[in-house]
Amino acid sequence: MKIILVGANGDIGRIACAALGARHDIITVGRSSGDITVDISDLSAVRDMYAHAGPVDAVVCCAGEVTFAPLDTFTQDSFVLGLHQKVMGQVNLVLAGQDVLPDGGAFTLTSGVLDRDPIRSGTGAATANAALAGFVTGASIELVRGLRINVVSPGLLEVSKNRYGAWFPGHRPVAADDVARAYIKCVEGALTGQVVIVA
Amino acid sequence: MKIILVGANGDIGRIACAALGARHDIITVGRSSGDITVDISDLSAVRDMYAHAGPVDAVVCCAGEVTFAPLDTFTQDSFVLGLHQKVMGQVNLVLAGQDVLPDGGAFTLTSGVLDRDPIRSGTGAATANAALAGFVTGASIELVRGLRINVVSPGLLEVSKNRYGAWFPGHRPVAADDVARAYIKCVEGALTGQVVIVA
Repeated sequence: MKIILVGANGDIGRIACAALGARHDIITVGRSSGDITVDISDLSAVRDMYAHAGPVDAVVCCAGEVTFAPLDTFTQDSFVLGLHQKVMGQVNLVLAGQDVLPDGGAFTLTSGVLDRDPIRSGTGAATANAALAGFVTGASIELVRGLRINVVSPGLLEVSKNRYGAWFPGHRPVAADDVARAYIKCVEGALTGQVVIVA
Repeated sequence: MKIILVGANGDIGRIACAALGARHDIITVGRSSGDITVDISDLSAVRDMYAHAGPVDAVVCCAGEVTFAPLDTFTQDSFVLGLHQKVMGQVNLVLAGQDVLPDGGAFTLTSGVLDRDPIRSGTGAATANAALAGFVTGASIELVRGLRINVVSPGLLEVSKNRYGAWFPGHRPVAADDVARAYIKCVEGALTGQVVIVA
């Protein structure tokens, strides 16, 4: 398969890229690095990305910026950032991609643990993660031609725990191999409309 | 109690207003009608609304515009509408209200059935509804002074079924009395962090 992988340079993206890259052709995409650069929060830029990439069988998105801040310090702009980048950005990949992917093509998005196991300063992320689950539920019954859509919801990664673990008291870090398996399951399997939890 | 009720003029708002108004003092708020008018998607306007209303014990929001459209006809703007109005609008009521409500005060938001029971053209609504569930999960552990937050998730209302029923094949309409009880439970009870389903 030929796969577009957005956010290939992040902690999760690198894991997905290594796992899928061993089995498929990957076009890496990022905001400032990769084979193609794009700001996914801009639907017209996402359309250009697909045109540039040419025919692809699947899209995986591991990108999605969101603000971490105590609830009583959020501004409208800092909260909206997650709605635009992590939610609308991934939605744009589907809105633009639904006419591009071949029959049976798959969208695999990425959310995270915080809507099911919240932490302090994580309300913006909890909102975005849950929004993506709702989007996948809705889109899965509307997509045509056997197109599939799922969202991987990983816990705090082993590789990220030194940087972020202090914010996630008591959370069990998840192994890279388990994260990798979730993306392979979504891309190569037959699931649709699912939140694939990696815990 | 003194309660701000946003979206008092909609189908759900009228039910909440009648039920709560029989037991409490209500300040009705709407975009174009009510004791106070405000566009809740603007945080500074929401701050002005609280200043205008004076001391209140609870906030109930039954407002939240979202676009209904087939997935393959959504534009970025039509999708963002729901993220700004239904999600950010209700989030703004909490961001601005967390310093205004007294100890133990309650926020009660409104989502809907479509993230758990999706329909065609409902993906924007499914996304917004789920986002609100995630927000409530996250905010409930961050709010201080015993402030509570819940979201009521009603199915298609009996009173709305003549207008919207054709879009909801097989959905069982919910009775106004059951919707009313959900708002009373959230405002007068002790729940927090809950999605209160009315099915």
